Amino acid sequence: MTAPGLPIGPDLLATLKTISTSTLTTQLFKRGLANVFIQGARPLKTGQRMAGPAFTLRYIPAREDLDGIDVFRDPGHPQRVAVEQIPAGAVLVMDCRGDASVASAGSILATRMQVRGVAGIVTDGGLRDAAGIARLEMPAWCSGPSAPTNLIRHHALDLNAPIGCGGVAVYPGDIMVGDDDGVVCIPAHLAHDVARDGAEQERFEDFVLEEVAHGASIIGLYPPTAPATRARFDTWLAARTAK
Amino acid sequence: MTAPGLPIGPDLLATLKTISTSTLTTQLFKRGLANVFIQGARPLKTGQRMAGPAFTLRYIPAREDLDGIDVFRDPGHPQRVAVEQIPAGAVLVMDCRGDASVASAGSILATRMQVRGVAGIVTDGGLRDAAGIARLEMPAWCSGPSAPTNLIRHHALDLNAPIGCGGVAVYPGDIMVGDDDGVVCIPAHLAHDVARDGAEQERFEDFVLEEVAHGASIIGLYPPTAPATRARFDTWLAARTAK
Amino acid sequence: MTAPGLPIGPDLLATLKTISTSTLTTQLFKRGLANVFIQGARPLKTGQRMAGPAFTLRYIPAREDLDGIDVFRDPGHPQRVAVEQIPAGAVLVMDCRGDASVASAGSILATRMQVRGVAGIVTDGGLRDAAGIARLEMPAWCSGPSAPTNLIRHHALDLNAPIGCGGVAVYPGDIMVGDDDGVVCIPAHLAHDVARDGAEQERFEDFVLEEVAHGASIIGLYPPTAPATRARFDTWLAARTAK
Amino acid sequence: MTAPGLPIGPDLLATLKTISTSTLTTQLFKRGLANVFIQGARPLKTGQRMAGPAFTLRYIPAREDLDGIDVFRDPGHPQRVAVEQIPAGAVLVMDCRGDASVASAGSILATRMQVRGVAGIVTDGGLRDAAGIARLEMPAWCSGPSAPTNLIRHHALDLNAPIGCGGVAVYPGDIMVGDDDGVVCIPAHLAHDVARDGAEQERFEDFVLEEVAHGASIIGLYPPTAPATRARFDTWLAARTAK
Amino acid sequence: MTAPGLPIGPDLLATLKTISTSTLTTQLFKRGLANVFIQGARPLKTGQRMAGPAFTLRYIPAREDLDGIDVFRDPGHPQRVAVEQIPAGAVLVMDCRGDASVASAGSILATRMQVRGVAGIVTDGGLRDAAGIARLEMPAWCSGPSAPTNLIRHHALDLNAPIGCGGVAVYPGDIMVGDDDGVVCIPAHLAHDVARDGAEQERFEDFVLEEVAHGASIIGLYPPTAPATRARFDTWLAARTAK
Amino acid sequence: MTAPGLPIGPDLLATLKTISTSTLTTQLFKRGLANVFIQGARPLKTGQRMAGPAFTLRYIPAREDLDGIDVFRDPGHPQRVAVEQIPAGAVLVMDCRGDASVASAGSILATRMQVRGVAGIVTDGGLRDAAGIARLEMPAWCSGPSAPTNLIRHHALDLNAPIGCGGVAVYPGDIMVGDDDGVVCIPAHLAHDVARDGAEQERFEDFVLEEVAHGASIIGLYPPTAPATRARFDTWLAARTAK
Repeated sequence: MTAPGLPIGPDLLATLKTISTSTLTTQLFKRGLANVFIQGARPLKTGQRMAGPAFTLRYIPAREDLDGIDVFRDPGHPQRVAVEQIPAGAVLVMDCRGDASVASAGSILATRMQVRGVAGIVTDGGLRDAAGIARLEMPAWCSGPSAPTNLIRHHALDLNAPIGCGGVAVYPGDIMVGDDDGVVCIPAHLAHDVARDGAEQERFEDFVLEEVAHGASIIGLYPPTAPATRARFDTWLAARTAK
Repeated sequence: MTAPGLPIGPDLLATLKTISTSTLTTQLFKRGLANVFIQGARPLKTGQRMAGPAFTLRYIPAREDLDGIDVFRDPGHPQRVAVEQIPAGAVLVMDCRGDASVASAGSILATRMQVRGVAGIVTDGGLRDAAGIARLEMPAWCSGPSAPTNLIRHHALDLNAPIGCGGVAVYPGDIMVGDDDGVVCIPAHLAHDVARDGAEQERFEDFVLEEVAHGASIIGLYPPTAPATRARFDTWLAARTAK
Repeated sequence: MTAPGLPIGPDLLATLKTISTSTLTTQLFKRGLANVFIQGARPLKTGQRMAGPAFTLRYIPAREDLDGIDVFRDPGHPQRVAVEQIPAGAVLVMDCRGDASVASAGSILATRMQVRGVAGIVTDGGLRDAAGIARLEMPAWCSGPSAPTNLIRHHALDLNAPIGCGGVAVYPGDIMVGDDDGVVCIPAHLAHDVARDGAEQERFEDFVLEEVAHGASIIGLYPPTAPATRARFDTWLAARTAK
Repeated sequence: MTAPGLPIGPDLLATLKTISTSTLTTQLFKRGLANVFIQGARPLKTGQRMAGPAFTLRYIPAREDLDGIDVFRDPGHPQRVAVEQIPAGAVLVMDCRGDASVASAGSILATRMQVRGVAGIVTDGGLRDAAGIARLEMPAWCSGPSAPTNLIRHHALDLNAPIGCGGVAVYPGDIMVGDDDGVVCIPAHLAHDVARDGAEQERFEDFVLEEVAHGASIIGLYPPTAPATRARFDTWLAARTAK
Repeated sequence: MTAPGLPIGPDLLATLKTISTSTLTTQLFKRGLANVFIQGARPLKTGQRMAGPAFTLRYIPAREDLDGIDVFRDPGHPQRVAVEQIPAGAVLVMDCRGDASVASAGSILATRMQVRGVAGIVTDGGLRDAAGIARLEMPAWCSGPSAPTNLIRHHALDLNAPIGCGGVAVYPGDIMVGDDDGVVCIPAHLAHDVARDGAEQERFEDFVLEEVAHGASIIGLYPPTAPATRARFDTWLAARTAK
Repeated sequence: MTAPGLPIGPDLLATLKTISTSTLTTQLFKRGLANVFIQGARPLKTGQRMAGPAFTLRYIPAREDLDGIDVFRDPGHPQRVAVEQIPAGAVLVMDCRGDASVASAGSILATRMQVRGVAGIVTDGGLRDAAGIARLEMPAWCSGPSAPTNLIRHHALDLNAPIGCGGVAVYPGDIMVGDDDGVVCIPAHLAHDVARDGAEQERFEDFVLEEVAHGASIIGLYPPTAPATRARFDTWLAARTAK
């Protein structure tokens, strides 16, 4: 669906993890993509970063005769299968149609995913036992804590199909990057370009922030329309790189 | 997924078309299904009835690099394929994630579906050139008229996968019945029972309405807890059937 | 709760029925009441007027073990009692917490109320078999047609308690007036004053509309700050009264 | 702000009035503008068309000490000035911040505007005495009827400043075109191009609709990817023009 | 209304306080109750638990002539009476119709309730001086901080009537249990069963969490469909109980 | 527009900074102003206070051809000009039409404002790099963190025009006061009166809180309808002042 790009390896993900979602959304906006930020997904805990390819789970509305408590006894139940099959390093992205009145997962499944090396959880629904999940090292973003079991509103259906999450198209393999602001979905074929230019933008903004903290006006500096700005940045960058 | 029931033929659909959605939702509630009414889908025109099996189309959010105006040149575009492949007598049910800011179809596609014998359209998104669609004989239910092309927000993806529409689970083959109140989704395996009991409920309510119009109190009549009510109904029914 | 005012008789109601809800909300705004218009309640049919004292029914959320289909077999079920006890000339006002996903009543109950001489129905929820209700002479205002039975979401509780409806406080005995724009709730103790001044405002606005239709500017005319306006109005009124 | 284009005269407006809003939003989407449809603005009456340059009125939230009923006595009150100053042929576009809990105008002001030759009213708020406005020849689009006076929520502020209306940027002089689906805002500098290409698109879609009504598949026809389609269209167009 | 059950004493409440709301909603779902979680009520502070019978306060919309600042001078004002009459150990549950634009209580009333031994506060409206309330030992759940006085939107009406709160039916005496995820309302007659089975579920989930943390797959473990799981759990439980 | 009052100097602002927003909204309600609390604006960090005159920035919806990434190269871009021109001690108040799907500013601009001595930021939109802003000493209130650049949805237009923010009218020069509950907008001409009476109310409520913490009932105390209350307060106040 999306054109294949370069392989996405650990280095690229490590780089993306250092770039803020605000920088990444700007890089994608420059490339014509305006709708890449998962609306309404907040981190359960501050200070965490995440980067990994999307592994998706789609829920449709539940129906009483199909979604009783016993469905979890089926070893093939898609939610449970997702938790066991998602590869290490991937991000579980769930399409809950923005309905946070119930949970989309809880601390047991989250712990299992952490043990399996999953990079994080993103959902436009709720999470139950959210405090327990927040204590994990694996980060999670959701619409908020919500205790009721997902069966009340959600029927788990597809693994790794394209989905909508928080109003954004998420294709399996797209790169999900999260920080305190939230989560951005980077189409896989743009990941390398966005990482390269985003890293440069971060460096420049670090410089700008330092300049501003020391009293510089933003006019001519941000963006760097004054010729002197570029020169000052090069000096700053050289000094920083020399360290 | 749903257990196979008796085959659903034209007679059953003809019967269901005579039963109001309020009666059908009550019949389904009696069987434990409370969430079967497509929320927010209003008829474009009053006075129409519809009954037919669901043929579904799923949209996810659009992405600028995948959903330009040229995608319609692809003869395999799912929205266009849906319009050409949906069987005569079926109902096109579209999952637009409840987003009515753009259209999910317009009058040309609707006209094509009418020519092909499609029973109706149900969407939780918008419809464009809604006045043109309303002039067709084939009925349509939607969140409201909306001119912008679906490409702005929607990416057509799946044909005949289970979907959510207006907050309700719709499985391909479920029976969609529509009237002036809106649209109900009847799980296929319940269609025969619901039609049988719904038809009886309609007859009884016709009797009740007549009684009430002639001055009867609803206490003991609706529901028929007074023994005399049943007797009067039997007489009424016999007289009516005799005609 | 509200201070007793003059008795509210048929003449007053007849007068109020001729005054538009836009005039009445302005009269109440002049008296410091800004929140008197039932938000979201639309008429099922255009061209109808209604005026009558509020008779209220309060719903709280349903609970599965209390609100099965059999509760209607209880002759004391508050919804059914409401329909039988509401006095002729009164308006049934229902508090559905603004939830229109289910009905708050249907055509059988509405027909019974028409037979009993009820002046109208106002709800911030839905109405089922709305087309049937629209065919009655008794008018109804609601959030829209909605087929599912009220039991799915609503538990009928109180008769004639103060309620909220469409974000407005409605005390039993308040005068509900409805037209094509919607419904206004007039506190009982203000009904006489509002009717008197509203009728005068209506006459003046009829005059203004005529002037405007003949090409007059609204400056100085509406409101009548130009001295000549008052004089012209007096002449107009005298001529009209003489007819 | 927007680059000056060719002058917009009566012929262009007459042409735009014949083009549907669905065609116009597609033409604008082809030019990269996806957000041009006034969300939530519905016509008070079906079957009307409108085209004219925007004359804007901005409301901010009301404040009790500034927005009492007496403010209308001020001949300089912006709402009243707007009604008297808007040029014949223009469209009054009001920014009500999407708040339809009160009116943004009523039938007296609307009648005055019709007398003055105004082309129509567009608001993302409510309209009071909506039935009266609907009886006028001048069309109006709004979020729905709403009786309370605008003073309760709105403070009229600016005439002819750029505004937001229904989530869309509207600059004075942009061309507002309305039909049964709603209203589109065409940036002035694009009006000529959009009218030319839109008219051609309309002709082609008339042809397509005729073909479809006679049994043609949409594949290869809409869009016209099959070479034969273009040829058939040319014949059809020649025949039609010859009439 | 709800059938009388066993008396609810301190031991039962102490047990319920140790059970998470996610476990309790699952227990109630198993018993057919799907709508028991107060939607939108978040704790003002994390790490707190609450269990106690509901004492309710119902607000309807305010009206300017009834709800001036002086109403609080009335010693019988329901909000103030509620604060003084609510029994020690009970939970004040307020029905604010989900409107968080104003407060439903503030730190003075909350402090008074803490002094009186009240178990907690639950509201679907806002709380003012929320930071002050958060410093108390008595926990509180609300839609968020909101400074304006309740009089602007709310009229306090009923004490200890059945209400809706966050979309859930709350009957006086129902048991409200709160944790970091939010608040669940347990119908009184189910409290004993839910506590017993919930405590067992908690023990089992503690075991599962330990197993998962040590690398176990959830298939066969959660739920315990593999026979070995039960055996391992029994061993674990025996060891734990022995401590 | 608002009558000029006494000059607003540092002492007045210092006093207002000690008064809670709950007290201030009550003082304004006593003066007839019920809609002064910026709905939905939450502090990025708890424990901060702010008081300063409003300096406003108005956004309208973005349009693709006007709001590309290059607009920031224009030294006259209103958002950048706002950041450089807002006076020390003032509060930047942004009208984002309540749309938090994108940012209205980020940490670089916020840092620049802190360096320039700005008192704080208030927006009904989002803020990007919200964690970075939260680390500043200058406080900020917003609808939540949101990474995407403002250009995606917002077009910066007016400096220091009257605006709506969170549903409240904000005129340049109005005094914005913020605390953990949120932000109140005090019309400039009322600032002195509100500060004087608010400070007194705060003192009295400190006394009440102390009484309540020591076991006093609120009846007769809050409000002080019991004669003894006033006497006790005078003694308390004298003792406190003597310290």
